[in-house]
Amino acid sequence: MIRPRTTAGILMPEQTFRRVFSQVDIRRLETDPALELLADRPLDLDVAADRSLLARTEVLITGWGTPMIDTEMLSLMPNLRAIAHSAGTVRPVVDPVVYERGIAVSSAAAANAIPVAEYTLALIVLGAKRAFWAADSVRAGRLEPDLESAWPEVGIRGRTVGIVGASTIGRLVIQRLHALELEVLLYDPTLHPVEAAELGTTAVELGDLVERSDILSLHAPSLPGTRGMIDRELIDRMRPGATVINTARGDLLDQEALADRLERGDLVALLDVAAEEPLPLHSRLRSTPNTFLTPHIAGSIGTELGRLSAHAVEEALAFAAQGAFRRGIDQQSFALRA
Amino acid sequence: MIRPRTTAGILMPEQTFRRVFSQVDIRRLETDPALELLADRPLDLDVAADRSLLARTEVLITGWGTPMIDTEMLSLMPNLRAIAHSAGTVRPVVDPVVYERGIAVSSAAAANAIPVAEYTLALIVLGAKRAFWAADSVRAGRLEPDLESAWPEVGIRGRTVGIVGASTIGRLVIQRLHALELEVLLYDPTLHPVEAAELGTTAVELGDLVERSDILSLHAPSLPGTRGMIDRELIDRMRPGATVINTARGDLLDQEALADRLERGDLVALLDVAAEEPLPLHSRLRSTPNTFLTPHIAGSIGTELGRLSAHAVEEALAFAAQGAFRRGIDQQSFALRA
Repeated sequence: MIRPRTTAGILMPEQTFRRVFSQVDIRRLETDPALELLADRPLDLDVAADRSLLARTEVLITGWGTPMIDTEMLSLMPNLRAIAHSAGTVRPVVDPVVYERGIAVSSAAAANAIPVAEYTLALIVLGAKRAFWAADSVRAGRLEPDLESAWPEVGIRGRTVGIVGASTIGRLVIQRLHALELEVLLYDPTLHPVEAAELGTTAVELGDLVERSDILSLHAPSLPGTRGMIDRELIDRMRPGATVINTARGDLLDQEALADRLERGDLVALLDVAAEEPLPLHSRLRSTPNTFLTPHIAGSIGTELGRLSAHAVEEALAFAAQGAFRRGIDQQSFALRA
Repeated sequence: MIRPRTTAGILMPEQTFRRVFSQVDIRRLETDPALELLADRPLDLDVAADRSLLARTEVLITGWGTPMIDTEMLSLMPNLRAIAHSAGTVRPVVDPVVYERGIAVSSAAAANAIPVAEYTLALIVLGAKRAFWAADSVRAGRLEPDLESAWPEVGIRGRTVGIVGASTIGRLVIQRLHALELEVLLYDPTLHPVEAAELGTTAVELGDLVERSDILSLHAPSLPGTRGMIDRELIDRMRPGATVINTARGDLLDQEALADRLERGDLVALLDVAAEEPLPLHSRLRSTPNTFLTPHIAGSIGTELGRLSAHAVEEALAFAAQGAFRRGIDQQSFALRA
């Protein structure tokens, strides 16, 4: 008996497709015996022929900029069984109604977590060494900046790093921190203290974490319950000379309170994300001292994008072969993640 | 039979001593049953009583700024059997004549290698992400710098990293690079290709290394044979968009040729060291594009200094107990290291 192949369609902006997917990825989809790729390019909702292909699609491969798959979109895809997302955050693409229809969901969060964790670890090391301050001092024409006088709490060894969120990224960062000689505190209300200990960390309450950390690194999703979680009171409780690192989402941190504290000159902020992106030109954070700003580059860029497409392709092939994703996101965990 | 305890003295500038050694370190030296610490502070060559203690010293604990132990200095220490150096580079302190007298030498190079390797890895990651360029663009008031257009070869994954020198630091960097998905080339004329392969690297000639590396990181000692080893011709052969990282010694790199190449705008330099330190205010490298300069901070600073003193203390205690260092530097390897 010949089983009919599972149909697959691609739905994402042309720009995302060209940036993230390679010829190798497309060839893998085209040549797999269990999968029928309906088009080797993104389908166009404005073209009737493409809408017909979409109507046949069982596995939809999505990416940055794919429109939200909600009731209306689902009406165009009566055969949809699975969504393989080629980016980390599924929330802008997957409406919860998808789960009511029994559609499987997978994301490339695990693949995207790798560069974010690598980048965060690099920021932790350079932050602890006060490298950005030192580089700014050299740039400002200082002959020999006296780092240990300016920042008595310099050095990586023995530091206390506070991790907010045992997310996929948070866990990778924790794993990589074990190579350094430091203490890792963890705040994650969804985690049992025993699990925190198994990760090699000490579970503490958020207030404790903020007060005890030399370096605070955020790895929580942006959800109604987490937005603004690092509020003015917590920002004021951070120890003098502490460093806050945000490679997660800008809205986790009260941006105005952060700018106020930075202006006092006793806090360092290494920020890859902002509550509003791109960071508005009038943002105070563009001119606060001890602020190292990058424009949301911790996640996959350049050669790292190939991990995202490879992940989505592998998940699409796994679904075609076995009727299930290898790293599906169930309805319960969807509620807790970005 | 009670064996006489081995006498130990400390010889280094007060400033080094206060910066590097803690009360815990001194207590360990004072309370060890095999060792007699002659003074809980550096000996002063200008004080007769201290000169008498120096004359009794068998194990000398040295550090940054200790005067060169040469024939003249040795004449003050007729009982000297061992030098436990609390910094990485022994060359400014140990004259080769020391070996002719059969005096054992140990350095804290292994302890100092840890922060240098951590720092270098962080520079490799941030360099591959073009984070310094991105941060400069944000700082210059650009709303959304287009990283992938400016630097098509962005991203950590799949990069080729070229390591110059399988030194203690070079090896630690190589070990840590294995956590990333990239190719590691190694140039070290003192190493057999089989040894390079055992380290998980591919041995190549220096010209090859320079031409094939996206990121070139220097970990060779500064010796007559290595000074200027990355000369104008090699600097010009580096690929467009490549990154050169120097956390070793400034004089390994032709500084003028580097400045010339940087001015062409197609090279990135992440430099923690310079041929002349502190970097003169008139140095061209202070204003070349894509240059991230830090003032020799990759090595031990702040909390990291405790590793140096702990290492020197442990070596002094080991020598007192067993008559030999655990990590002694023999005459042959002395010739090859900094």
